[in-house]
Amino acid sequence: MDTDASQRSADVLRALREALPGRVVEDPGALTEYTTDRSGHRSAGVPLACVRARSIEDVQAVCRIASSGGHPVVTRGAGSGLAGGAVAGPGEIVLLLEDMDRVLEVSAENRLAVVEPGILNGDLNALLAEHGLWWPPDPASKDFSTVGGNIAMNAGGLLCAKYGVTREAVLALKVVLADGTLLSVGHRTVKGVTGYDLCALMIGSEGTLGVIVECTLKLQPLRSGTVVTIGAYFDSVDAAAAVASAVVRDGFVPAIMELMDDRTLTAIATAGGQDPTAAAESYLLVQCDGADAEDAARGIAALAEAGGGRVAVTRDPAESERLVAVRRSAFPALEAMGTLLVEDIAVPRDRLAEAFTAIRRIEERYQVAIPTTAHAGDGNLHPTFVFTDREVPHHIWEAAGEVFGLALELGGTLTGEHGVGLLKRAWLQDELGEDQYELSRRIKQVFDPQGIMNPGKVFPAGA
Amino acid sequence: MDTDASQRSADVLRALREALPGRVVEDPGALTEYTTDRSGHRSAGVPLACVRARSIEDVQAVCRIASSGGHPVVTRGAGSGLAGGAVAGPGEIVLLLEDMDRVLEVSAENRLAVVEPGILNGDLNALLAEHGLWWPPDPASKDFSTVGGNIAMNAGGLLCAKYGVTREAVLALKVVLADGTLLSVGHRTVKGVTGYDLCALMIGSEGTLGVIVECTLKLQPLRSGTVVTIGAYFDSVDAAAAVASAVVRDGFVPAIMELMDDRTLTAIATAGGQDPTAAAESYLLVQCDGADAEDAARGIAALAEAGGGRVAVTRDPAESERLVAVRRSAFPALEAMGTLLVEDIAVPRDRLAEAFTAIRRIEERYQVAIPTTAHAGDGNLHPTFVFTDREVPHHIWEAAGEVFGLALELGGTLTGEHGVGLLKRAWLQDELGEDQYELSRRIKQVFDPQGIMNPGKVFPAGA
Repeated sequence: MDTDASQRSADVLRALREALPGRVVEDPGALTEYTTDRSGHRSAGVPLACVRARSIEDVQAVCRIASSGGHPVVTRGAGSGLAGGAVAGPGEIVLLLEDMDRVLEVSAENRLAVVEPGILNGDLNALLAEHGLWWPPDPASKDFSTVGGNIAMNAGGLLCAKYGVTREAVLALKVVLADGTLLSVGHRTVKGVTGYDLCALMIGSEGTLGVIVECTLKLQPLRSGTVVTIGAYFDSVDAAAAVASAVVRDGFVPAIMELMDDRTLTAIATAGGQDPTAAAESYLLVQCDGADAEDAARGIAALAEAGGGRVAVTRDPAESERLVAVRRSAFPALEAMGTLLVEDIAVPRDRLAEAFTAIRRIEERYQVAIPTTAHAGDGNLHPTFVFTDREVPHHIWEAAGEVFGLALELGGTLTGEHGVGLLKRAWLQDELGEDQYELSRRIKQVFDPQGIMNPGKVFPAGA
Repeated sequence: MDTDASQRSADVLRALREALPGRVVEDPGALTEYTTDRSGHRSAGVPLACVRARSIEDVQAVCRIASSGGHPVVTRGAGSGLAGGAVAGPGEIVLLLEDMDRVLEVSAENRLAVVEPGILNGDLNALLAEHGLWWPPDPASKDFSTVGGNIAMNAGGLLCAKYGVTREAVLALKVVLADGTLLSVGHRTVKGVTGYDLCALMIGSEGTLGVIVECTLKLQPLRSGTVVTIGAYFDSVDAAAAVASAVVRDGFVPAIMELMDDRTLTAIATAGGQDPTAAAESYLLVQCDGADAEDAARGIAALAEAGGGRVAVTRDPAESERLVAVRRSAFPALEAMGTLLVEDIAVPRDRLAEAFTAIRRIEERYQVAIPTTAHAGDGNLHPTFVFTDREVPHHIWEAAGEVFGLALELGGTLTGEHGVGLLKRAWLQDELGEDQYELSRRIKQVFDPQGIMNPGKVFPAGA
């Protein structure tokens, strides 16, 4: 670090300490936590500092100080991201929002809640359940990811085909811009078309446009009634994918429809989590809820049987839990095998089988196993690379690049729900094309002219 | 017109004729149609020309020609807008998309359709019904408004509380920018978080950011099963609003919930459309569909009775049609009384009764009747000013300004579904605030640096 930079760092640290006494973390040991997230990616070194914000004013103060010296700000919730979006490195200020976790309002009459961004999704939903209400976004991380993080990434999950993605569950946001300006975007009302939809623009912007400091959430009545669960084993992933496709084609709208391949089933069996009699090439898990759950489940089970599935149907919560546990044990079983690079492509739903076949070819070409699970109801696949090194080896990145290329070839996308972050930024332009990429960069400049909000994320560093 | 401007107009007309032979309308008589829309607003004079585009290439050609000479482009579908968003005046080129009305793809497996923007909503849905599919946006204009127009305005309608607004029913768009660049935004997949959500940004941008030339629509299975309709007369609009609020509070999700005040009922009775025995101060219409329609209708009818309503419940399609006809006859009955200025505020759902009371006060202050209907399920009110002049008189604009102020005071918005267009641009900054207004203008500049896309709409002219 040159003398100038060193002086500027000392200045910004002094300003932060003065503005937020007792809330600036500078101990390198404590800062190490923020060099990584659940993607496994690790930055080049510890950040300059971490500020534990407790209020909108705190966030504004940090942004003002950072922008006056041109210091990068990395907003972070619980660090549960899978794309490196909240990873911070040397010279960067971590703006930690996990202490901003209050529920400011719950309104059954307006079917909305106003919360601070740091509350955990699971904690919020536990509280809402007491009011007979529910916030539908359900990423697998919901027990340890924040509402603000879910919104910043436009998180998905298992229920999206029926209940929508995070974007559909947010009415309005308060956002602090790079220069400390506080903005209210969106509407408290169900409908509202005044001006551009800057609320939707903020959702999924991965901390690159501003800091989400307050969230007005669109709620639904708590789901009630019978839940019917169907588990079906197939002799090929193609057969299972064909059934998933038929379910959509025939107009069923299951709450959950998950598909797993043989590699994943083997990993689960190895980890001891699967019924050994159920050895198969693929597993399809379907769950129906709502008033038509019985009718839908009957129709879907018939499709699964006609498609060659060995089908179990249950209304019993314990038995249902056993069927769902097969899906839930997938990632722990894979994690037991080594380091993971979890990919996240999405393809049009009728091209799932093609995607699995092509992934098999990539496996052969690179001599690497790629166990893959899919949210079959919405075409979102998680091809998961398993390896022994701590860092992602070069050939795995090459194979991942082929998986991304495959997604685009099939009319899909690089990332269905995890975001671009650091891990997929090199492929961003392949999907957006040059014109949209340029336009997006210029939109970022409108919000953040100095480029201090989460630099290097989504767009390559220096872009 | 000075000589330079006159020369530039001649140049652009020649270029248009050469690029799109036979599709440039220059006859002043024919052009008069484009000086107005269903808002009743009329521009200062006929536009320069109208081009009937038939393809994406046509639209690109028009935009290139327009941008090379800095000529304004007003994109227009069926001219059914209620905010003057597609009204064109002197020197402007109307880009008419009603001939671009092809359905390019319907996929039951992917639950999507790809269409050109000029197809009528009603025509599309008639075709989709043959495939067992449905595109939910249902503005009252659906039989004579285009899908592209619905998207450009983020149209609402009666079904939004249950089935969402237009934004939730669009997966991807092709858009031509001011300079002729063709952009693909959004995703063909259910999930997709690569880059900023420029698709959502385009939705509701009222032709100010670009021209929507292809729409990938998110469909739903056609609704089936029993529909239960409830009509309830009340002795006060407060009582009806309280029941509507209780319906939401208790977790019911009706497909339709409409509320009408005494002024509207009187207009209908005068026009001869209402059962004379039903004289009342307010009418609440509720419709339940889906597998839980019976249960929900039972619960809602009980709430209406407890709230003092005289309640009719029916499953009979003819009788149901009679109950719905009361709502449907409202605007024709008001139109028979004079010229209308239909306003479109939205308020949080628990503030409906307050909104009605405040509108009564504005009526007294300005000595003008403001019959009001509301989409009570989502808090969207249509206070409707009735007058005899052809233009909106000054005191009516003043009264409308008070209605807008009321909406903001109650935590609502200027426009729930009609858009800003020309009619509400003077109040835009009141709702957005200076910072968001400035940011929005700069976003427009990123897309349209010369300011030729629908100038004077949404933002005041010269802003």
